[in-house]
Amino acid sequence: MKCRRCGARAEVQLRAHNTAFCRPCYLFFFRRQVERAIDAQRMLVAGERILVAVSGGKDSLALWDMLADLGHDTTGLYLGLGIGEYSDRSREKVEQFAAARGLPLRVVKLEDEQLAVPGVAAATRRAPCAACGTMKRHYFDAAAFAGGFDVLATGHNLDDEAARLLGNVLRWQKDHLARQRPVLPPSHPKFVRKVKPLYLTSEYETAVYAFMRGIDYIVDECPNAAGATQLLYKGALDRLEVASPGTKLAFVKEFLRSAQPAFAAVEQREPMECAGCGMPAYGVLCSFCSLVREVENRRARTSSALPA
Amino acid sequence: MKCRRCGARAEVQLRAHNTAFCRPCYLFFFRRQVERAIDAQRMLVAGERILVAVSGGKDSLALWDMLADLGHDTTGLYLGLGIGEYSDRSREKVEQFAAARGLPLRVVKLEDEQLAVPGVAAATRRAPCAACGTMKRHYFDAAAFAGGFDVLATGHNLDDEAARLLGNVLRWQKDHLARQRPVLPPSHPKFVRKVKPLYLTSEYETAVYAFMRGIDYIVDECPNAAGATQLLYKGALDRLEVASPGTKLAFVKEFLRSAQPAFAAVEQREPMECAGCGMPAYGVLCSFCSLVREVENRRARTSSALPA
Repeated sequence: MKCRRCGARAEVQLRAHNTAFCRPCYLFFFRRQVERAIDAQRMLVAGERILVAVSGGKDSLALWDMLADLGHDTTGLYLGLGIGEYSDRSREKVEQFAAARGLPLRVVKLEDEQLAVPGVAAATRRAPCAACGTMKRHYFDAAAFAGGFDVLATGHNLDDEAARLLGNVLRWQKDHLARQRPVLPPSHPKFVRKVKPLYLTSEYETAVYAFMRGIDYIVDECPNAAGATQLLYKGALDRLEVASPGTKLAFVKEFLRSAQPAFAAVEQREPMECAGCGMPAYGVLCSFCSLVREVENRRARTSSALPA
Repeated sequence: MKCRRCGARAEVQLRAHNTAFCRPCYLFFFRRQVERAIDAQRMLVAGERILVAVSGGKDSLALWDMLADLGHDTTGLYLGLGIGEYSDRSREKVEQFAAARGLPLRVVKLEDEQLAVPGVAAATRRAPCAACGTMKRHYFDAAAFAGGFDVLATGHNLDDEAARLLGNVLRWQKDHLARQRPVLPPSHPKFVRKVKPLYLTSEYETAVYAFMRGIDYIVDECPNAAGATQLLYKGALDRLEVASPGTKLAFVKEFLRSAQPAFAAVEQREPMECAGCGMPAYGVLCSFCSLVREVENRRARTSSALPA
């Protein structure tokens, strides 16, 4: 197979785009795809300070690599989730990445705050991914606001967005559908804009980019993810994609073009400020502080039940 | 396991409903489910003349069985699609069913009109299921109008509706989403109301009902269906249903409750009358007459290309 751009021997075939590229042309193609997504959705303005949420996986490191390479002012934020050795190794990958490129990195460790994911999930009897998501959102938002950043960028890729969309659609969660966008403008002065520059590039495309760019990332799936609903949805979409390449891209793009505006048009509630942490909240407490309260109550009950 | 209704030994477990029944209670449950669907959606009015589209499969024969049993005035319509031995055997099943119950049956054979599905699909290079769907819709509508029926009832079950919904959602086909309802009021005087009384009962539930009622139906899948997109969607939903029972039911019910009205609210075009057959059409020709025109053109070209 030949590269569609220069005619050299192709190294990558992209069935969803019905094309193939050699290595240099693939890097050109991938970068242009991301730049187009950023421009078309007006994700970033020149000179803005961007906080990039990095997990040590291919998507977030590829995103940081590209944003830095495009000349943006980027700072990495690594959140230590306290998931044993998995967290240790992913932090190392992030630290090595930042050090090698001389990029600024902030590290927040949840275990230091007695909020390691496994313990919180057990104490609150939630699915680990649900507890983890709530905590990540809170710390990302809080760090972006406290650090005076303009934008928070995350590495969600097309597969993530398609799986999330399928989950939202299977239950017709209209409030979630209303907020599923690659750019989320701040709904409160303490929120910053959130962007997902990789939302149209697939997991495979990002992996190829990371490989070609020599990015050393953590390959393992999070040990908590086994059996997660998100993986079920990804599996279902993967099978449909094999039968009909381009299914995921059409699903997400067409949603944003033609259906999402209808869901977004429904009046959205304005957030108040959380009585616990002061960050925006839709109730008295934000979902993070509710979670922490649950953990504290549980721990108080457990310790008071111990023999004196 | 015990029957949830009477405590006898259960014969059927329904994970989506988190329940189990013995044979008599299952028949009671299934019938009540269908009656509730009919009433809640106001599908039928007492005394109406119902044309039931029957294929010889479990769903349409179970539907006819139940509507007749509920005391409705029903007539069966069997459409011979000319799919070889498969069509012959399904017609036999329908004829035996009608004869045994003394129910009136009309039979239309497409092969008599040189419109057998395999030939039409080949001549127009369409997927057989697409050509077949267009033809079925036309003959059902035309027969319902010509026969002076009030309602056309089809045996679409929950699995059919969920798969169709998934397909419509993956491409965000808003015009299709706007029309995906268990009751379709006539948009033109030559259309009759179309209803799907089994839209909330799964394929499995209908099969169990047909088995318990001793209905002899054609078990084989249509030979043209192999590889059909609809089966792909069904497979994807089946896997999600196993992991999370009730997924299909929630997907379809919640769509109808909360999302469908938004799609339906978008202004719908009124149909004109087809210049070919006089039935309602959204263009000069209805989609059936366009299909027939394609077949005729193709055959004219082929025969004129023969040596004189």
